Amino acid sequence: MKKETLVYEGKAKRLYQTNQRHVLWVEYKDSATAFNAAKKATIDGKGRYNNEISSLLFQKLHENEVPNHFVTQISATEQLVAETTIIPIEVVVRNIVAGSLSKRIGKEEGTILPKAIIEFYYKDDELDDPLINEDHIDVLQLATPRQLEEIKQLAYKINDILIASFDQCEVKLVDFKLEFGLNHLGKLILADEISPDTCRLWDKATEQKLDKDVFRRDIGSLTDAYEEILTRLKGVHHV
Amino acid sequence: MKKETLVYEGKAKRLYQTNQRHVLWVEYKDSATAFNAAKKATIDGKGRYNNEISSLLFQKLHENEVPNHFVTQISATEQLVAETTIIPIEVVVRNIVAGSLSKRIGKEEGTILPKAIIEFYYKDDELDDPLINEDHIDVLQLATPRQLEEIKQLAYKINDILIASFDQCEVKLVDFKLEFGLNHLGKLILADEISPDTCRLWDKATEQKLDKDVFRRDIGSLTDAYEEILTRLKGVHHV
Ligand SMILES: Nc1ncnc2c1ncn2[C@@H]1O[C@H](COP(=O)(O)OP(=O)(O)O)[C@@H](O)[C@H]1O
Ligand SMILES: Nc1ncnc2c1ncn2[C@@H]1O[C@H](COP(=O)(O)OP(=O)(O)O)[C@@H](O)[C@H]1O
Ligand SMILES: [Mg+2]
Ligand SMILES: [Mg+2]
Repeated sequence: MKKETLVYEGKAKRLYQTNQRHVLWVEYKDSATAFNAAKKATIDGKGRYNNEISSLLFQKLHENEVPNHFVTQISATEQLVAETTIIPIEVVVRNIVAGSLSKRIGKEEGTILPKAIIEFYYKDDELDDPLINEDHIDVLQLATPRQLEEIKQLAYKINDILIASFDQCEVKLVDFKLEFGLNHLGKLILADEISPDTCRLWDKATEQKLDKDVFRRDIGSLTDAYEEILTRLKGVHHV
Repeated sequence: MKKETLVYEGKAKRLYQTNQRHVLWVEYKDSATAFNAAKKATIDGKGRYNNEISSLLFQKLHENEVPNHFVTQISATEQLVAETTIIPIEVVVRNIVAGSLSKRIGKEEGTILPKAIIEFYYKDDELDDPLINEDHIDVLQLATPRQLEEIKQLAYKINDILIASFDQCEVKLVDFKLEFGLNHLGKLILADEISPDTCRLWDKATEQKLDKDVFRRDIGSLTDAYEEILTRLKGVHHV
């Protein structure tokens, strides 16, 4: 497999074409950003943690028959994925109240939700990723009602799998963000990443934050937190 | 009918109990507020316009079998309504892009929507009336899924009736806000008001704004705009 032209550089990753059609080469960067990149830093090792953690979790999802873009990990900071046309919706699944949800509905961080909440945000940096509803998605033609239904069903299934995976290593899955795309056959699959950058993860016993909130809120070492997650996941999941 | 104790004073109206059970006496005030009351003014005549317009439109809705709280107009600024337990959701129906929708989805004001959009806002001044979705409504227990379905169906029906009513007097119904409540029998009915305070109304030919945006954006005389709407409605609707 050969890395070819850069297709896209985002805040956290670089995507390259390869000599194989429909396969992209992903390089995880060491950059940390928050609040739509208003806060930025370079953090050595971050790319590695996210690549390793995301690879492990996507493999877990493959094992559980969740269609996803992951092909294989090729180095500490790189993986191959199936190329998709990303649906520009950030799908957020929440099990416990935190962050913007706490402000939106006026419930304290840590409140356990009676059932998982799904939120859709329009993936558009210029608009600051606003919350949208299904009517907005329809008008913007971001996804068909049928695709949206499939997305929701997949999101619930992924939530169940991830809750169990993290529970085994004494971590509470508070919330997380997913991105879906259509592969070259038009099939809806999970894409992007699942990492402490895109999840809220709390230690089960102490509720210590082991995710990007450490960086957002300046409450400790990001690499210590991410390393802790990777170590715990590796300890229980031998993928 | 006798006006008794004040039950509630809001930004635009005062509600009193009456000597008849389940009937409230509503007094429309001359106060104008915008941006969650960050902008305020007293405007002589405003209470009268809103009371007259809302009375006329709610009667129109009664004629079309939309269950609603309106009982009768009792003076220029007062009406009687059925008491309800208000569901704290502001139901916004949109036919044309304007205001916050323009900012949210990045479409120009004036863009005609291919079909009506419904949005739900949590009626909570402290939280600044945030946009919410059906999962939030469920968690907050603001309405049951069945009530929400009924609300949506009523909202579409009301939209059809209001579009036609305004169309007859050369006005485009851009968007509007509804509030629903449960009457003493637990029946879901339309409550609150429908007026230039709660609708965006544009002259069909010139797109001149004939609603609260005149006040929000300081672009003319609020009373002239509201008077124009009342005159036009009275000209074609002899209720
Ligand atoms: N399988 C895939 N095919 C195409 N694009 C993808 C795939 N997986 C992720 N992407 C996209 O790669 C881009 C780079 O990722 P990232 O650096 O996280 O970007 P962002 O700054 O948008 O968060 C994102 O736009 C993401 O949606
Ligand atoms: N039929 C009704 N029964 C009970 N409350 C009502 C009814 N119709 C409207 N209300 C409520 O009356 C209050 C006063 O109205 P308003 O001055 O517009 O208040 P606000 O400042 O909340 O917009 C609002 O909270 C509204 O929901
Ligand atoms: Mg990203
Ligand atoms: Mg009001």
